[in-house]
Amino acid sequence: MRIIDIRETAVPLNSTLRNSSFDFSEMTTSVVAVITDVVRDGARVAGFAFNSTGRYACGAQMRERFIPRILRADPGSLLDETGTNIEPEKVLACMMQREKSGGHSERSIAIGTIEVAIWDAVAKIAGRPLHRLLAERYNGGRVADKVFCYVGGGWYFPGQTLKDLQDEMRRHLNAGYTMLKMKVGGLPLDQDVRRVEAVLDVLGSGSRLAVDANAKFGRNAAVAYAKALAPYGLRWFEEPCDPLNYALFAEIAGAYEGALATGENLYSTQDVENLMRFGGLRADRDIIQVDPPQAYGIVQFSRTLDMLARHGWQRSAMFPHGGNQMSLHITGGFGLGGAESYPGVFGDFGGFADDARVEDGYLRLPERPGIGFEGQAGLYGAMRPLIE
Amino acid sequence: MRIIDIRETAVPLNSTLRNSSFDFSEMTTSVVAVITDVVRDGARVAGFAFNSTGRYACGAQMRERFIPRILRADPGSLLDETGTNIEPEKVLACMMQREKSGGHSERSIAIGTIEVAIWDAVAKIAGRPLHRLLAERYNGGRVADKVFCYVGGGWYFPGQTLKDLQDEMRRHLNAGYTMLKMKVGGLPLDQDVRRVEAVLDVLGSGSRLAVDANAKFGRNAAVAYAKALAPYGLRWFEEPCDPLNYALFAEIAGAYEGALATGENLYSTQDVENLMRFGGLRADRDIIQVDPPQAYGIVQFSRTLDMLARHGWQRSAMFPHGGNQMSLHITGGFGLGGAESYPGVFGDFGGFADDARVEDGYLRLPERPGIGFEGQAGLYGAMRPLIE
Repeated sequence: MRIIDIRETAVPLNSTLRNSSFDFSEMTTSVVAVITDVVRDGARVAGFAFNSTGRYACGAQMRERFIPRILRADPGSLLDETGTNIEPEKVLACMMQREKSGGHSERSIAIGTIEVAIWDAVAKIAGRPLHRLLAERYNGGRVADKVFCYVGGGWYFPGQTLKDLQDEMRRHLNAGYTMLKMKVGGLPLDQDVRRVEAVLDVLGSGSRLAVDANAKFGRNAAVAYAKALAPYGLRWFEEPCDPLNYALFAEIAGAYEGALATGENLYSTQDVENLMRFGGLRADRDIIQVDPPQAYGIVQFSRTLDMLARHGWQRSAMFPHGGNQMSLHITGGFGLGGAESYPGVFGDFGGFADDARVEDGYLRLPERPGIGFEGQAGLYGAMRPLIE
Repeated sequence: MRIIDIRETAVPLNSTLRNSSFDFSEMTTSVVAVITDVVRDGARVAGFAFNSTGRYACGAQMRERFIPRILRADPGSLLDETGTNIEPEKVLACMMQREKSGGHSERSIAIGTIEVAIWDAVAKIAGRPLHRLLAERYNGGRVADKVFCYVGGGWYFPGQTLKDLQDEMRRHLNAGYTMLKMKVGGLPLDQDVRRVEAVLDVLGSGSRLAVDANAKFGRNAAVAYAKALAPYGLRWFEEPCDPLNYALFAEIAGAYEGALATGENLYSTQDVENLMRFGGLRADRDIIQVDPPQAYGIVQFSRTLDMLARHGWQRSAMFPHGGNQMSLHITGGFGLGGAESYPGVFGDFGGFADDARVEDGYLRLPERPGIGFEGQAGLYGAMRPLIE
């Protein structure tokens, strides 16, 4: 068996979203199809993925380097020991040929997106949902049936009132979610605090609310927000500063008793290990949010988890960035703390299967073969043309 | 005045080079032209740059994001206070709109290459060589007339003998260079030591030889090489390990009295500051090698130098990666320790003006307006079609 083609198309998100640091008006994502010569139900098996949101499409790197390396390789050199399915670890090593050390995100997103599409094909060839394959390979066979899922919402919109924000949060609660996240840092501190208090009026408890500053703050603003937010006992305070400023993370952790969260803008195991060594984070409370399709994919994510375990971190501290079915399977398969959800934003690139239902804060894991994009009509409409 | 177009083309290096970690057989570089409406000598002023070597061409990011942002901007918003020339700092801010924190190299190379081409145009509009503009703006007006320059050579080739390596080094000495660098880590330690000793037989003193491991080693191999190399008193030991593994750098620095060198695979000021804080490097001897066109360009490089000064580092510790006229002007203009040279490798993308002469280890700074690619016939042959 072999991979016969890998195709990519860039899709604009057409989003009007804005957080404290930037807007999404130009945002695109790469949709990838990995086409194999394996036939199931009368059709060739194809695996799909896309590169989450917040980083731009990366098809040029794929077409110039990563896809040709895979298609030029001896097909047998990419298979598992049974010779009947693809071994993603070998595909990853193939893509990494002739790449320099460091400088990860320039290629980690392109490679990670292809790698996750490979996994979709692998699971379809095996005839099983991806989360079950991952549970067997990476979690001692402990298969989950549902995943905790919170809403990444509370964006800034022009003309938004506190009541608009409260109405949004009520919609999420009515949809079955129990924990919500909102943006901070896009307004002066006193106005942001009023936004937080307005949402807490709806939610009741700070333990059900996280806030996200999207790396907006320097030292003084980060510490000022930490002090102002501390009394509310929030679930976590996300990306208070530059994701690479480990020394400032350590300073903020020293000044803020509550949980901090970061990781969606770290793209290599070594970067995350630097955060562990120098960032002053606390394994008993803080949250790590690496986005696997943006960080070399699932095989590399398993290595990051191994590294985190050596530093004393539990998998329950991991909440992968990216509110989509890829993160859902990864969260369930590896037994992580929870997944994110973006209801009503990012168009077809936020959300889960059309028949997915949230109950009491949990989503049932899908049982379609692979990741199950085929059960997500809008998104699959962007994927299907790649294999036609 | 305004920028009327920015064009890019990817050029293959067609190189057979190999270091300890990877080969250059697929390597490409982006050649960029920034075309202005300013007329000098009867022709529109155009600025040029390319993205050094070792990282691949990045035209897709340029065409999809960075070039449209510049061309869409109000032209007046990109000018300096006189309104008669471009302000590169404003162009940099324009390109960075809607970009997330972290994840630098995915865009730092594309942005840095455009930014350096902007500087070439700025200097041509001013009718002066770039190094003089940089000296006035960033070095208190201290204009240099020559720059120390060493050879980055000693690559591995199939079938190479020790005599071949010695012959290469003799050619560099005969060409006027006084300090050489060679690769290590591509052979077992005992064979690499024999290579080093063979080169020292030609050079005489270890203070005239640096070695470069291209991030090949894990902890044990790095420490073994450090111990084996220590007796030779080498000028420096470059990239012994993963460029992001700051903890391992600190360990190696604790075990190796001689100078270490790194930085060509760090792309942001924050990454370099992490190296300063956590890497255990020593301002009295170690060497930093950031490559400005790969790391957001010259304006950002000036910020990195300011950060390094706050950590007690002198500019003499800076030896920018990239043996080309861009690094030459930057080294001279900022008053850095020295520049690199790649005689006979990287084709038209290594080397200086055709009339450049090395004397006693120094290159005279060129006096053509801008960077002076027009005086480098082979390279300019790849640039000129962009403006025709």
